[in-house]
Amino acid sequence: MSALNSAETLESLRKRIEVAAGRQEPDLVIKNCKIVSVDTHEIIEGDIAISDDKIAGIGEYDGPNVIDAGGQYAMPGFVEGHIHIESSFCTPEEFSRLVVPHGTTTAIADPHEITNVAGLDGFDYMVRAAEKSAMDIKFMLPSCVPSTGFENAGAVINAADMEEPMADAKTWGLAEFMNSVGVINCDDECLNKILVAKKNGKPIDGHSPSLMGQGLSAYASAGIHTDHECSTPEEALARLRNGMYVQLRQGSACDDLRNLLKCVTESNSRHCILCSDDRSCATMFEKGDLDDHLRICVEEGIDPITAVQMASLNAADCYGLKDRGSLTPGKKADVVLANDLKDFEITKVLIDGKLVAEDGKYLPEVVREDITPVMSSVRVKDFSKDSLKMRLKNGHVRTIGIIPGGVVTSEEIRDVKLDDDGDFVFDPAQDVAKIAVIERHKYTGNVALALISNYGIKRGAIALTVAHDSHNIICVGTNNDDMEVAVARLIVLGGGAVVVNDGEVLASLPLPVGGLMSDQSGESVRDSLADVHDKAFNVLGVSREVEPLMTLCFMSLPVIPKLKLTDMGLFDVDKFDFVDVQADSEE
Amino acid sequence: MSALNSAETLESLRKRIEVAAGRQEPDLVIKNCKIVSVDTHEIIEGDIAISDDKIAGIGEYDGPNVIDAGGQYAMPGFVEGHIHIESSFCTPEEFSRLVVPHGTTTAIADPHEITNVAGLDGFDYMVRAAEKSAMDIKFMLPSCVPSTGFENAGAVINAADMEEPMADAKTWGLAEFMNSVGVINCDDECLNKILVAKKNGKPIDGHSPSLMGQGLSAYASAGIHTDHECSTPEEALARLRNGMYVQLRQGSACDDLRNLLKCVTESNSRHCILCSDDRSCATMFEKGDLDDHLRICVEEGIDPITAVQMASLNAADCYGLKDRGSLTPGKKADVVLANDLKDFEITKVLIDGKLVAEDGKYLPEVVREDITPVMSSVRVKDFSKDSLKMRLKNGHVRTIGIIPGGVVTSEEIRDVKLDDDGDFVFDPAQDVAKIAVIERHKYTGNVALALISNYGIKRGAIALTVAHDSHNIICVGTNNDDMEVAVARLIVLGGGAVVVNDGEVLASLPLPVGGLMSDQSGESVRDSLADVHDKAFNVLGVSREVEPLMTLCFMSLPVIPKLKLTDMGLFDVDKFDFVDVQADSEE
Repeated sequence: MSALNSAETLESLRKRIEVAAGRQEPDLVIKNCKIVSVDTHEIIEGDIAISDDKIAGIGEYDGPNVIDAGGQYAMPGFVEGHIHIESSFCTPEEFSRLVVPHGTTTAIADPHEITNVAGLDGFDYMVRAAEKSAMDIKFMLPSCVPSTGFENAGAVINAADMEEPMADAKTWGLAEFMNSVGVINCDDECLNKILVAKKNGKPIDGHSPSLMGQGLSAYASAGIHTDHECSTPEEALARLRNGMYVQLRQGSACDDLRNLLKCVTESNSRHCILCSDDRSCATMFEKGDLDDHLRICVEEGIDPITAVQMASLNAADCYGLKDRGSLTPGKKADVVLANDLKDFEITKVLIDGKLVAEDGKYLPEVVREDITPVMSSVRVKDFSKDSLKMRLKNGHVRTIGIIPGGVVTSEEIRDVKLDDDGDFVFDPAQDVAKIAVIERHKYTGNVALALISNYGIKRGAIALTVAHDSHNIICVGTNNDDMEVAVARLIVLGGGAVVVNDGEVLASLPLPVGGLMSDQSGESVRDSLADVHDKAFNVLGVSREVEPLMTLCFMSLPVIPKLKLTDMGLFDVDKFDFVDVQADSEE
Repeated sequence: MSALNSAETLESLRKRIEVAAGRQEPDLVIKNCKIVSVDTHEIIEGDIAISDDKIAGIGEYDGPNVIDAGGQYAMPGFVEGHIHIESSFCTPEEFSRLVVPHGTTTAIADPHEITNVAGLDGFDYMVRAAEKSAMDIKFMLPSCVPSTGFENAGAVINAADMEEPMADAKTWGLAEFMNSVGVINCDDECLNKILVAKKNGKPIDGHSPSLMGQGLSAYASAGIHTDHECSTPEEALARLRNGMYVQLRQGSACDDLRNLLKCVTESNSRHCILCSDDRSCATMFEKGDLDDHLRICVEEGIDPITAVQMASLNAADCYGLKDRGSLTPGKKADVVLANDLKDFEITKVLIDGKLVAEDGKYLPEVVREDITPVMSSVRVKDFSKDSLKMRLKNGHVRTIGIIPGGVVTSEEIRDVKLDDDGDFVFDPAQDVAKIAVIERHKYTGNVALALISNYGIKRGAIALTVAHDSHNIICVGTNNDDMEVAVARLIVLGGGAVVVNDGEVLASLPLPVGGLMSDQSGESVRDSLADVHDKAFNVLGVSREVEPLMTLCFMSLPVIPKLKLTDMGLFDVDKFDFVDVQADSEE
């Protein structure tokens, strides 16, 4: 349906002017709106006249095709400022079905996960699938495949590989530059990737958790113009002062929005936009999408029109989407109706002048893109229980310390029990389990082992093929037998998540599309997820403080502090180097 | 010097990051600034580190090359939102010399005048001349050459003629679409011009005086995204509501700024920018440039940072100038220092990291582009006194009624004296004179005659080759003899302005560059202008209520109401057709 937003022709231009001038009947009139003017920051009562896929005029209009808004608020379609669609566990067509009824009509997507698994074939699959959705999804080209040289992903995309796809109109810009250290340290390959985007005049997204001071200036000076990794108001303000846009994040695992809103004022909000980053379909069913962000903004005392600006005009400005972002003549007819600007209960959504959602229901038929090119992605060599055995000298170890509610971890020093061969033995008295990362893209046979604390697991194992950003298999367990069963089942499923206890698979979520996304409906994913969560919490005893899967997803991501585990070993992000599990290894 | 703002290379990018990170010395540090942050709407104390032509970092920096701001305010270089450089009577190199010391570092220019005289050769001359200036001048391609079909200009540029220049990087967009009636009425040629700009993704400037309601929606729906012709706060607000940018104008003849500021609020100012449109060099010497606009904004109660935003970030946003508009890392190092944010007395101006003006003095050597291609533009056929004779049936006439302080005229009905042949005879008892427009581009021999009231002239004649937009010769006088002498002198000068009385040329301003611009300094132009004004006021008796030349400049412009005179006759802009000088002609 994106094709509806077609190139302007003499006929479409003429018709729109005729409609606006009142000389020709609109294709559709949305009557009796309270129009949220994000341009003038006011509410304007009137009708919206639509010609083809665009708004012709705002004022008094009539015609044979009318939607009577009955005094409801009309807002510009919401623009999701930064999302990894893969984290919904759904394909783009299904993602569209889930978020459009919540008012999201445009998304800036970074298909970083599928590209790390399947390279540019994965990128192209996402573009094709998105073309089958009602919403408009603009894809940024992943900048860090892999995110660092300290892990094996399914593909490597160098600066030279980017020349062709970046020049293509299907690529909207360069996706979040996660290797901020590489940029600040002037790594040639990093800078060359930036130059490819600059040469094509395309925006470059950032990713710089905790970065402040001259390091932040250096990062901004490279031309990186957004960041969605702020977790404090001070970090957000520092980025605004450096001329960057701040993407205020409210995802499934990261709920930074309320805290970040403390730095947002009427005077500095123009460079603030809303984003989800990683948002499971379960969260969408439970809380909605950008309508959820808007509710939170208003709850936190942000003026409702300012909140809507962040969800529309500001994001459109940020990404140079000149054809949308406000309900004004000539713009894309992406219109969201809601009863009020407090609960933001969305009643109708129009995209390109067509009604695509009503009372929470997505109206277009869901047509799915062929997933064959991104199937069969779990390629593991000679995996057996033996690979899971640790050989520690003593029980004085550093563990990856989970910090609930975020993706940053701590380094903890613990003393754990070992068996005679030096392998970790689970002790119910302390909250430490084994974590394994098994390479699954190119049959290297790599298996890395470490320990993780504060996850709460008391028995069995949990494993998944979604592990940012290389998406190797990540597995946490209390014993090698259950961990082996879990990994073996994932190989059979072609990816997904499984919960195992006493050698039995208790729950599973198959994700055959690149080992990241389901080929089923969001409802089916939600139910499987709920089952996985239920078994993880109630059988395995995983801590209620954490989200069992999403939390593990980030335990392999070597660009967010502090300790992470890749298929090549335990990684200290601050030192930007591997460290030993053995805590006294320096001695 | 614009070449300094060169394409990014690996070396320039690396150096800037190194400087920002504090690992390499900046090329220049501006120490101890109160930085006006247009991004966060606050004042930040700190230093500005410069690497090559760009800002590397804001914070604490040191190096061997320092400018100590001593606590002065540092602002982003000002962006002139819409100007016809020709109206300064100076060439681009000289214009740069005049405005840069006032903080203007970028201008969005519409070379409409020279292009109406010399076609695309005139456009190209302006681009070449601008490349020799310190400031960056972005040229919009004139959309209306001629502005209507009701006049003869020196060139005709159709939509088809625009394909090639619009695709060229030297063209920033489509200049003010003066024929708003043509757009609203869906004239094919107008719409095709718009399509050429859209196809190239370039901005389209507007020009829609008095337009409101569905006509305005129609104009905006065509994709026209600015207007500088607002004269009331209501008109300005209506444009903002239609998603357009409003260029708040303060020129030599039009002083709309104070009035328009009444509609500007903190919440709607982001789509407001500042412009001069037409500003004589004499005004620049007297009042400055955008610093003058800023003083007026603050006098009228606009927050000073909001005013600076309008002069920088907002204009950069409006025109997609992503490389400038704020003092943040990675942006062009265009910096303006001033003692305060009230008087805006500019002490230093840097462009591309180089000091280009200090205490009102422009520092670079002025190197001038060859003007040969735009000389010898006054081409008049067989002109004689006989051409100036009117043949009216009776003295009941409509006159072009000047309204002081603007460019809109009224229609007045007067009863004037005639001689035996029906020619107009000047009567000192009433303020009516003869006005002639003599075609001067292609030897058509066209001479159009009409009457003008409220100009105040009591004797002699005044003539000039600057007459928007076709720039035929316009001459006002009390007698045919003096009018003939004035026109003849203009032909000899190759263009300019002259004041004649009793057969004698009392004052003249030669404008040999297209009959529009001087090849001399701004000071020389100012002095000649002062002499022309002095003789116009003190000898000819022109009313002190009007600007003798600028007022006449607009008497030939058939797109601004109400009555105007082109070389083809008296034109009623509201009726969009010619009318008779004879008031009872309908009977």
